[in-house]
Amino acid sequence: MILFILKEGADPRELKERLASVSASWKEVSLYGMSLILAWPDEYAAKVSDQSVVSKVKTTKPYPLASNEWKEKTLVEVGNVEIGGKRVVVAAGPCAVEDEQQVVETAQAVKRAGAALFRGGAYKPRTSPYSFQGLGEEGLKLLRRAGDEAGLPVVSEVVDPRDLPAFKGKTDMLQIGARNAQNFQLLKDVGRIGLPVLLKRGMGNTVEEWLLSAEYLLSEGNGRVVLCERGIRTFERSTRFTLDVGGMVVARQSTHLPVGADPSHPAGRRELVHALTLAAVAAGADLVIVEVHPNPERAKSDSEQQLTFDSFRLLMNRVTALAKAIGRDI
Amino acid sequence: MILFILKEGADPRELKERLASVSASWKEVSLYGMSLILAWPDEYAAKVSDQSVVSKVKTTKPYPLASNEWKEKTLVEVGNVEIGGKRVVVAAGPCAVEDEQQVVETAQAVKRAGAALFRGGAYKPRTSPYSFQGLGEEGLKLLRRAGDEAGLPVVSEVVDPRDLPAFKGKTDMLQIGARNAQNFQLLKDVGRIGLPVLLKRGMGNTVEEWLLSAEYLLSEGNGRVVLCERGIRTFERSTRFTLDVGGMVVARQSTHLPVGADPSHPAGRRELVHALTLAAVAAGADLVIVEVHPNPERAKSDSEQQLTFDSFRLLMNRVTALAKAIGRDI
Amino acid sequence: MILFILKEGADPRELKERLASVSASWKEVSLYGMSLILAWPDEYAAKVSDQSVVSKVKTTKPYPLASNEWKEKTLVEVGNVEIGGKRVVVAAGPCAVEDEQQVVETAQAVKRAGAALFRGGAYKPRTSPYSFQGLGEEGLKLLRRAGDEAGLPVVSEVVDPRDLPAFKGKTDMLQIGARNAQNFQLLKDVGRIGLPVLLKRGMGNTVEEWLLSAEYLLSEGNGRVVLCERGIRTFERSTRFTLDVGGMVVARQSTHLPVGADPSHPAGRRELVHALTLAAVAAGADLVIVEVHPNPERAKSDSEQQLTFDSFRLLMNRVTALAKAIGRDI
Amino acid sequence: MILFILKEGADPRELKERLASVSASWKEVSLYGMSLILAWPDEYAAKVSDQSVVSKVKTTKPYPLASNEWKEKTLVEVGNVEIGGKRVVVAAGPCAVEDEQQVVETAQAVKRAGAALFRGGAYKPRTSPYSFQGLGEEGLKLLRRAGDEAGLPVVSEVVDPRDLPAFKGKTDMLQIGARNAQNFQLLKDVGRIGLPVLLKRGMGNTVEEWLLSAEYLLSEGNGRVVLCERGIRTFERSTRFTLDVGGMVVARQSTHLPVGADPSHPAGRRELVHALTLAAVAAGADLVIVEVHPNPERAKSDSEQQLTFDSFRLLMNRVTALAKAIGRDI
Repeated sequence: MILFILKEGADPRELKERLASVSASWKEVSLYGMSLILAWPDEYAAKVSDQSVVSKVKTTKPYPLASNEWKEKTLVEVGNVEIGGKRVVVAAGPCAVEDEQQVVETAQAVKRAGAALFRGGAYKPRTSPYSFQGLGEEGLKLLRRAGDEAGLPVVSEVVDPRDLPAFKGKTDMLQIGARNAQNFQLLKDVGRIGLPVLLKRGMGNTVEEWLLSAEYLLSEGNGRVVLCERGIRTFERSTRFTLDVGGMVVARQSTHLPVGADPSHPAGRRELVHALTLAAVAAGADLVIVEVHPNPERAKSDSEQQLTFDSFRLLMNRVTALAKAIGRDI
Repeated sequence: MILFILKEGADPRELKERLASVSASWKEVSLYGMSLILAWPDEYAAKVSDQSVVSKVKTTKPYPLASNEWKEKTLVEVGNVEIGGKRVVVAAGPCAVEDEQQVVETAQAVKRAGAALFRGGAYKPRTSPYSFQGLGEEGLKLLRRAGDEAGLPVVSEVVDPRDLPAFKGKTDMLQIGARNAQNFQLLKDVGRIGLPVLLKRGMGNTVEEWLLSAEYLLSEGNGRVVLCERGIRTFERSTRFTLDVGGMVVARQSTHLPVGADPSHPAGRRELVHALTLAAVAAGADLVIVEVHPNPERAKSDSEQQLTFDSFRLLMNRVTALAKAIGRDI
Repeated sequence: MILFILKEGADPRELKERLASVSASWKEVSLYGMSLILAWPDEYAAKVSDQSVVSKVKTTKPYPLASNEWKEKTLVEVGNVEIGGKRVVVAAGPCAVEDEQQVVETAQAVKRAGAALFRGGAYKPRTSPYSFQGLGEEGLKLLRRAGDEAGLPVVSEVVDPRDLPAFKGKTDMLQIGARNAQNFQLLKDVGRIGLPVLLKRGMGNTVEEWLLSAEYLLSEGNGRVVLCERGIRTFERSTRFTLDVGGMVVARQSTHLPVGADPSHPAGRRELVHALTLAAVAAGADLVIVEVHPNPERAKSDSEQQLTFDSFRLLMNRVTALAKAIGRDI
Repeated sequence: MILFILKEGADPRELKERLASVSASWKEVSLYGMSLILAWPDEYAAKVSDQSVVSKVKTTKPYPLASNEWKEKTLVEVGNVEIGGKRVVVAAGPCAVEDEQQVVETAQAVKRAGAALFRGGAYKPRTSPYSFQGLGEEGLKLLRRAGDEAGLPVVSEVVDPRDLPAFKGKTDMLQIGARNAQNFQLLKDVGRIGLPVLLKRGMGNTVEEWLLSAEYLLSEGNGRVVLCERGIRTFERSTRFTLDVGGMVVARQSTHLPVGADPSHPAGRRELVHALTLAAVAAGADLVIVEVHPNPERAKSDSEQQLTFDSFRLLMNRVTALAKAIGRDI
């Protein structure tokens, strides 16, 4: 596709007419404060010039807006936290919000240990209809309170576009989970919301499909997207999923968006979480998600993979040392 | 879980009190005209008896309602077509509805060749935001008209719960696609609708997860569910996906619901569709989906895998001969 | 690569000189009673002509000799049995040879039921060093005796080139198993032996790699090769492996060699074997392998997937009906 | 299985008699200077005691000798290099030996940069019979010369038991490649040789199968085994294979043997090698293999994934910094 970046305040009408005159199709997107026109097919659109255009880029990837063929690395701000820069951002918290004490304690503990974001699930997509489905809006309120008390911005997963109003004001970043990574309706709706998005890779999705899911968000005008590898489905079952470190690196080399990893879900067992977190950071993750619970064995979901406060503190020490060794902060 | 089947018209209150008295949890479901109570944990619930109960079944699968531990094979009626019986039901039609002529012609052609259901996509979940996204409600109207003229019940995919009102009256069966196979919100909403459901397996989902997705539908009271294998993600890329015939057979041996296959998507290429369709039927598929287009090379989506009318007619001859050889009709 | 087919009795020296003069590389192979010269790179070799050449074929596949770009379907004869023709060849027998009575009884039973080949393992590649490793040469002798008494040619697996002398005279067809599918030394040695070969696909190999393993055999001059799909490694674990019917069809469309399937190993459980066998035959398998044991529950290996005599007889009835319906014999 | 560790110099005859008297089976192994008797089934063998026994361990894994249920971490010495200790051992060199200058230059360069072992391929297992198959014994001689001049022990792959005599004296460590990971005949023969072994994981093998392949070596008396993860086959094809960091960690937690990784093969492209190497080291790899070539673009095999000398030097700096940060040396 051909990406036209317009001059500030320029009127795109003439450009569109010129595209129409060569039978090209286009899509207009407002992104990162810029007016953009994506046009195709290439052989027609490439010939078009217009005085409204600052720059014209021929993109070769199926995800032109998410690709780094036209833009330097994007920094995504969540509250006062910047993702995609020198700092390795650690988002920590319980898999599911269970009660006030649990979230408040956990937020305090992860803050003390050095986490930058507080993450917890209020709406839980569960494989079985008989599993705990989350506290819903009540959970979002508890997260907000716990995050505010600890001084941490809050990340939580949305599973239904109709819940989006409930997230406003209570959440600083929306997560789209692996099972909804190709729920394109949800992507479109979240793309129209001003909140930053943490977009997980689907367990059966290629890197290209993952970036195309990000493209759905960007093409709706939301460029505040952080990609998150969380393990893919492979024949190996001694881990819950296979953390695809290589895929994460390919994504980082293909997009201007920050890319991180969730080592907790592929681990599936506490004793693997440290090693996988360190691997992700060493390979360049801009963000890592770690599940932490005051008493993992009593957790209502994913009890096997959540860390205790002590174990998380130890992990943060290890991540900090490693981040410095590779020229990053934490 | 323990499944209590109640006497017709019986009052479940006393049973619930007895379950409460042993600290068991339960869920009440109305399914197949029966009142059911699912209760757990087993060690508590198993001890409970009540005069309201006709039958008490200890289920061992995580999907008690979908499992065949309590029920003989279910027949799902779609219009005048019965799925799950002796007949191998062929659902055919274009990947996407494009215009009236296309759907009307195709419906006539597949009807003449012996198809039992007309299937076409009005709302298309596409990997790329720049691909044709379907005609939406207008497409549903065209499908209805084409199906009515040909005398075929209509199947079409729903991708957003908010679109469900548009499907009422226009569609005889709802399809839930592979990418939404774990969109649990959509499953819950479709579970509350009276329409039969064709539930595809997610490309990264195990057989057990697929049956758990069906359980979402059943636990909301919709038992008119047909499962559909459509290929899983594997390392082999000479086919678009790997049709998991073995997984389909395992599903058939595990559930009372009809189980079918979509050989078109895993094939990804026309010349493989015949062989995969025959394989699915030979392995016991209750339904097969075949994509047919008047002019596949001009199709707006999946042009590589749609059959011409001639090729479909030939396939129907082959499927008919095979079905008879294994003691089924078409 | 460019494939030169030479006139009968022609002297290839001049052709080689011409190839040398344009800096092309070549390999000389004697196959199917023909003298062949494979030469590359294409841009040089394509220009060469010579009076010794009957036909010059530009092959586009990485496996020129195995591809069907130059040759019609090959029939492989094993004793009096022809593989690759109208007949669906069933090779049956125990996973492992255990004792004389077992093999003799099984050979008689599978013969009576209509099997064309008797197959049993004397050298067993086992995942664990503590599992039964087979009877070795003694097992080959028992197979021979049982096959002769029943009037069935014998197929058995070779795992080490140094064992090849023991197979001579005792076996009519050599099997190369999935774990040795890329044991290129073994392939080269077996390629130099006159016996027909049943080449299984490796559980982690693509269709292309599988055909390249066949190419090793053909490029050593052995063209009597039958390919056998036996299930690949995928995330699905409700079956032992995933029978890749689509991959088998792609292989059949790419090679002149017969292509078959082993439904027993991917099934891993007796109750799946019938359905997978029928699927393979419906999709066009030229050969199917079925494991049969007089008393499967006492078998020393793979006891879960071997059929009883009764079950095998029933399967043969079903396969026969199906084969006729698709225009084949058994 | 029950593992009996015998007193030094003790006579095992009485123990064997006692095992026989309870109908237990056993296997005698001499490993790490110890006399061991493995006996099964557990319910019989566990009852047996004997004065010759120092220690009796009930192992629960299918790979009793490789498991860490009975032994602390093993250090494997290759020349003067110890694998499995505090040091992260880097084995570097070209994918294939091509000529003397290439190997001598590369050995010098990797030595200067800090590599501990020199690795190169003389016998190359290639997917295609038409690819460069290696220089064979001549290659081994060149490796020896280059290693000696640089002062580095030499590692090279063996693909055929009949080649083992050629390796004696020329190689300090034998590699068993991914494609031979379940070539059990080769494993048995290599198990009887005194040389240390670098055992790669098969691309389609589970962690358990990989450890069972090691068990083949150990059960033949060779305990000097280093395991090496090298990427598994998954649906993701933007990398050549998927480096299974999680599987490597599981292996390290399951065995007393050192465990390393080969990041070059899964990367498949130079620009991914750094990140994957750092990930492997961060996750605890005892050894990493890096392919280095004086002029990668002209390499006769795997040219896409070999590093230049400069890139390797930079990688060593990064690995060194990282190793220190996690409490290891290089």
